[in-house]
Amino acid sequence: MKALVERLHPICRSMTGDGVRRTLEIINERIPLQVHEVPTGTRVLDWVVPQEWNIGDAYVKNAAGRRVIDFGRSPLHVMGYSVPVSGTMSLDELRPHLHSLPDQPDLVPYRTGYFRQDWGFCLSDNELRALPSGDYEVRIDSTLTDGHLTYAEHVVPGTSDDEVLIFCHTCHPALANETLSGIAVATELARRLARRAMPRLTFRFVFAPAAIGSITWLAMNRERVARVKHGLVLACAGDPGRLTYKRSRRGDAVIDRALALVLASREHELRDFLPLGYDERQFCSPGFNLPVGLLTRTPNGEFPEYHTSADNPDLVTEDALRDTLAVLEETAQVLEENATYLNLEPYGEPWLGPRGLYGVPGVDHLALLWVLNLSDGQHSLLDIAERTGMPFPALSAAARALSTAGLLKEEGNDAQGGGPG
Amino acid sequence: MKALVERLHPICRSMTGDGVRRTLEIINERIPLQVHEVPTGTRVLDWVVPQEWNIGDAYVKNAAGRRVIDFGRSPLHVMGYSVPVSGTMSLDELRPHLHSLPDQPDLVPYRTGYFRQDWGFCLSDNELRALPSGDYEVRIDSTLTDGHLTYAEHVVPGTSDDEVLIFCHTCHPALANETLSGIAVATELARRLARRAMPRLTFRFVFAPAAIGSITWLAMNRERVARVKHGLVLACAGDPGRLTYKRSRRGDAVIDRALALVLASREHELRDFLPLGYDERQFCSPGFNLPVGLLTRTPNGEFPEYHTSADNPDLVTEDALRDTLAVLEETAQVLEENATYLNLEPYGEPWLGPRGLYGVPGVDHLALLWVLNLSDGQHSLLDIAERTGMPFPALSAAARALSTAGLLKEEGNDAQGGGPG
Amino acid sequence: MKALVERLHPICRSMTGDGVRRTLEIINERIPLQVHEVPTGTRVLDWVVPQEWNIGDAYVKNAAGRRVIDFGRSPLHVMGYSVPVSGTMSLDELRPHLHSLPDQPDLVPYRTGYFRQDWGFCLSDNELRALPSGDYEVRIDSTLTDGHLTYAEHVVPGTSDDEVLIFCHTCHPALANETLSGIAVATELARRLARRAMPRLTFRFVFAPAAIGSITWLAMNRERVARVKHGLVLACAGDPGRLTYKRSRRGDAVIDRALALVLASREHELRDFLPLGYDERQFCSPGFNLPVGLLTRTPNGEFPEYHTSADNPDLVTEDALRDTLAVLEETAQVLEENATYLNLEPYGEPWLGPRGLYGVPGVDHLALLWVLNLSDGQHSLLDIAERTGMPFPALSAAARALSTAGLLKEEGNDAQGGGPG
Repeated sequence: MKALVERLHPICRSMTGDGVRRTLEIINERIPLQVHEVPTGTRVLDWVVPQEWNIGDAYVKNAAGRRVIDFGRSPLHVMGYSVPVSGTMSLDELRPHLHSLPDQPDLVPYRTGYFRQDWGFCLSDNELRALPSGDYEVRIDSTLTDGHLTYAEHVVPGTSDDEVLIFCHTCHPALANETLSGIAVATELARRLARRAMPRLTFRFVFAPAAIGSITWLAMNRERVARVKHGLVLACAGDPGRLTYKRSRRGDAVIDRALALVLASREHELRDFLPLGYDERQFCSPGFNLPVGLLTRTPNGEFPEYHTSADNPDLVTEDALRDTLAVLEETAQVLEENATYLNLEPYGEPWLGPRGLYGVPGVDHLALLWVLNLSDGQHSLLDIAERTGMPFPALSAAARALSTAGLLKEEGNDAQGGGPG
Repeated sequence: MKALVERLHPICRSMTGDGVRRTLEIINERIPLQVHEVPTGTRVLDWVVPQEWNIGDAYVKNAAGRRVIDFGRSPLHVMGYSVPVSGTMSLDELRPHLHSLPDQPDLVPYRTGYFRQDWGFCLSDNELRALPSGDYEVRIDSTLTDGHLTYAEHVVPGTSDDEVLIFCHTCHPALANETLSGIAVATELARRLARRAMPRLTFRFVFAPAAIGSITWLAMNRERVARVKHGLVLACAGDPGRLTYKRSRRGDAVIDRALALVLASREHELRDFLPLGYDERQFCSPGFNLPVGLLTRTPNGEFPEYHTSADNPDLVTEDALRDTLAVLEETAQVLEENATYLNLEPYGEPWLGPRGLYGVPGVDHLALLWVLNLSDGQHSLLDIAERTGMPFPALSAAARALSTAGLLKEEGNDAQGGGPG
Repeated sequence: MKALVERLHPICRSMTGDGVRRTLEIINERIPLQVHEVPTGTRVLDWVVPQEWNIGDAYVKNAAGRRVIDFGRSPLHVMGYSVPVSGTMSLDELRPHLHSLPDQPDLVPYRTGYFRQDWGFCLSDNELRALPSGDYEVRIDSTLTDGHLTYAEHVVPGTSDDEVLIFCHTCHPALANETLSGIAVATELARRLARRAMPRLTFRFVFAPAAIGSITWLAMNRERVARVKHGLVLACAGDPGRLTYKRSRRGDAVIDRALALVLASREHELRDFLPLGYDERQFCSPGFNLPVGLLTRTPNGEFPEYHTSADNPDLVTEDALRDTLAVLEETAQVLEENATYLNLEPYGEPWLGPRGLYGVPGVDHLALLWVLNLSDGQHSLLDIAERTGMPFPALSAAARALSTAGLLKEEGNDAQGGGPG
C-alpha cells in the first residue's frame, strides 16, 4: 500500500483535470475502475460542475532567470485552480499572490482558489522572506475551460443489492496521508474482497474529488442511494496515530455500531457527527441522511503536517495502513455476518448434547447459549455482541453451528436505507 | 427594581385584605393590572375562598402601658389571620400565643394561622425572654369577615394565543427577597416586553396569594389552561445566591430545557420537581400538569433570613435582581424564537457562496451548517442547541439568515399544553 | 431454618430417586406439598425425563478390607448417577474414576455423571495421594432404571390467579448453603404467608431438580406459565456474604425493580442476566421469557466451599437465613401492594385538612403529596418509589390513607406475563 502512496504522490491533482485521470489510471492497474466524466455546467444537486483546470508549467523567476518557485519541484507550489498568468512584476505586486506558513517556516502550504478566478504560488516562509525586492517573471501555464469532472467506481458485487459505500477523495496534490493513504487502503480492501467468495453485500468504491465529487455522485445516483445500507469515507488513513471514527448523522446506524465494536479492542476515539469535515457532510445531509461515517487515523487538521509539504510519504507507515485495513476487514465481517436469527427451540434450553453441540472446536459454549437466548427475532448478532461484550466472530461462529444443527433460522439482516430522520 | 421592593416592604399583606390591594395599586403604577375580586365562599377546585382578613392596630402593652410588641413597627409582629382579641392576661396566659426563633434570637419570625381561628404575636426570642411576668394588655384589632380574595393580571399580548405564565405570590408581609423581589423582577420584565415589537407568545403575569391564589386562578381560568405553553413561578429572586431552577413535573418541558440552556452559562443548580414549594405545586397537579417550573436564587428555606424579619431590603441587591431579569429575558428569547425549520435544499449542502451566505457579519458559519443539517422538520432550534452546544442566539440568527435566503421554512414552533401525563 | 438445613444435609439427593422423595417428606412436615412423579421417558420440552437413580451402598476397600472410600460417611463420595460396579481392580484401573481437588486438598468435591453411563468416587486429594498401589474392592450398589422424576409444589392461594413463582432446586447431596438454605428460606416464607390474610397474588413454591426439574415443570404447566407475573430462583441463601440479585432476561421486570428497591438499603450487588446459572436459564429462555430472577447471597461458584464437602451447615448462619427471608418478605410486600392509582381530585392539590389527612400517625406528608401528584393512572407505587427515593411502605401507607379518604382509586396492579420479548 505504501508503494501506491509513493507512486501517486508527485501527481498534481485538483478538483478536475488530468492529474485526477492519471491517478485513476494507476489505481486501475490494481482494481478495474469505471471512470465517469461529467461535463462542466452540469447541474448537480444545488451545485454546478465547474470548469476543468489543467496546468503545464508554472514558475517565478528572479532577475537572474533562476526559478525561485518551480511547479516542477512540487504541485503544491501552485494554488489549485490558478488562472493563467504571464508577465513581469515587482515583488510588491507579486507579494499578495504568495502564500506561506509563518508558524511552520520550512513547509509549503496547500492552497486552492476554487470558484475565485484567482492565482497564486505557495512556498515556505523561509524562501518567501529570502526573496529580494526587484522584478520577477511570473508564469502559470494553466487552462480553465469547459471540460469534465472525473470520478471512478469499482464494484465488488454481492448476492444482494444492498450496498456498502467506500468513498475516497482524489483532489489533493502531493498529500500522502490526507489523500493517498485512504486510496491505498480502499484499493487493497477491494482486492481482498475480490479474492473471497461473493459477499452478501455489494461493496462500491468511489474515487472522486471532495465535496463536489460526492455531490456529483449523489446527483448521478439518486435512485441508488436507497441501496446504500452502510458507508465510510476514508482519509488520513496512514499516519501512526490512533484510529478515530466520526459517527454518521444518525449516530446509531449499524456502521456506527460496527465501528465502535471493532475499534473497542484498539486504542481509538469515537466522535459525534459534525457538519464539518469530508464528504460525510454530503452523504449525511438531511435529505439523504445516509449511514455514512468517517474513518481516519489522526483526523484532518489535527496533525502538524496536515495540508503542507510535510504530508509526504515519510508520514505514512505500512503498519498504520495495515491496521486501518484490518479494521475495515473486521468491519466488513460484522456488516456481512450481522443477522437476526430465530431460535427454533425457544422453550427452555435445547438439549445440546444429543445434537453434538458440546465441545465443538471453535465454538464457544457461552456464545452458543447467548445466541440461543437472545435469538427471539428481536436481536441481531450485533445487538448480542453489544449486550454481552462477547466478540462478534465468536457469536457469528455460534450462530453458524446452531443453524447447521437446525436450531436457528435467519430472520433477516440488519440493513438500513437513507431518508430523512 | 430594588426601589419597588423597598416601597412594598412595609405593607401588611396576607392571603386576602387591603394590604394585597395596596400592593397591587403600587404595581399598577408601573404596569396596568386587571384586578379580580373573588367572593368569600366561592368554590375553587377542591377549596373554598376563605374570609377576608384585615387589621388596624395590634399590640401587647406592659403594666406600664408601653407597647412591648407593636404591629406598627412591623406587620410580622402579628400572626396572619389572627382573630380579634382584646383584654388583659398574665404572661402565662399570653405565652402560648407568642412565637419566636430560639436559634435566631434577634429575628422576628413570620407566622400565619390560616384556617385555624387562632391569634398570635411574633417577636424576637431576646425580647420574649426579657418579658417580665405580670399582666399585659393584649389587643388585635382585626376583622375576619366575608369579603374577597384579590388577585391581578397583566397581559402582554402576542400574535398567538399561546401563553407564557409568570406567577408571583403576593401574600407575605415584609419579606423582601422571598416575596417582593419576584414581583419586582416580573414587573420590570413586563415593562421591557411592552417596549418591544409584539411578541409571538402572549405573556400573562399573575399576582396572587400563594396556594389559594393559584388554585383560584386555575379555577377561574379552566378554559385558558390549555393555552399555557410555558410558565414560571418566581420567588426569592433578589438575594446574591446562585440561581436555582426547579423543573416542572414533566421534567423535559420546553420551559425546563430553556432554563437549563440559559442557566448553563451561569453558576446555577437544577432540581427535579417535588410537590413541596410554591404555586408550581398547583400548576403541576396531575390534572393540569402544566409546564411550569420555579425560578429562585437561593431556594425558599435555604437562606437563614427566610421567613424572618431579616428578609428585609438589605438582603436584596440590584445586581441579583438584574441577573434574574436577564435570565428571564434570555429565556423569553428562547421561547419566542424556538421553532422547527425545514431545509428546502436538503440534498447535499446548499451552495452558500452564490447566496451570499459566506462571511455574513453576525452569522456563525458552523451555526449555519448545523441549522441546515438538522432542519429536517424533526429538530427545533432548542434541540439543535442541546445537541451541538452552540449558543441559542447564534442558531436563531443563522435560521433567520437562511430563511431570508430562501433555504429554510418554519414548520412550527414547539409549544406544549397541559393535561395528564 | 438452620435446623432444617442440618436435618436435610446428610441425605443423598440427585436428579431423581428416593433421596429427593425423603427431602420432600421432611419439607412436607412444615408445609403441605403436592408431589408429582413424572415417568422416565416423558418428553419435556426438548428433553426426555431420564432413568431414576438410587443407591444403597458404595465403597472402595483396600487389601486389608478397610473402606478407604465410604458412601456411608457422605453421599458426596459417590459421583451422582454412577452406574453399578462391583469387582476388584488395581489402583491404576481405579484411578480414572477417582475425583479430587488438588487446589483444595482437604475437601471432597461434588461430581455428577448425568447422561454419561459412567461411575466414580470423590475424595479429598490428601486421601487420594495416600492410597498405596495394589488391588481394591470396588462396589457401587446403585440402580439406574425406568422410574420417575420427582418434584413438589406448595401453593399459598391469593385472591387473583396471578402467581409469584419461587423455585428451589433439590438435586444436590449434602450442600448446605448451595441447595438447602434456599429450601429452608422458601419453606419459612411459605409458613409466614400462610399465617396472614389471603394475599392478592398466589405464591407457588416449586421444589425440583435443577435444569431438568424446571424444564419438566414448564412442560407440565404450559397453560399456567402466563399466570407467572413474578418469580425468583433461590439458592446459596445462607452464607454470610452480601446479597446478590441477578436480573431476569427482561432486566426491567417488576421483580427486577422490586429487588433493586428492597436491596437498596442493604449491602448488595445487582447483576444482569446471563444464560449460565440455575433454573432462571429455563424460565428466561426466549419462548417463555418469564420475569424470573436469581436471588443468592454469595453467588454459585464464588465462595471457596462451593460444590465441596466444606459446604456444610457450618457455612450457613441463622442471621444470613433471616436476612434473606426478610428480603423476600419485603419483596412480597412490594409485589402485593404495588398498584397504579388514580387521583380523584387531580386539579390542584386536594384540601387535606378537612379530610383529616394532616398529621395522621404513620402517614408521611410528603408521601401523601407524591402519591397524589403522580397518581395519574401512569405511575405505579413502584414507579413513584423509584422516582422519589421514598420508602415503598411509606408510599403504600399513604395510598391506603388516601384511598380511605376517597381521594384515590386503584386503576390496576402492575403484573407482567411471559412471552417473547
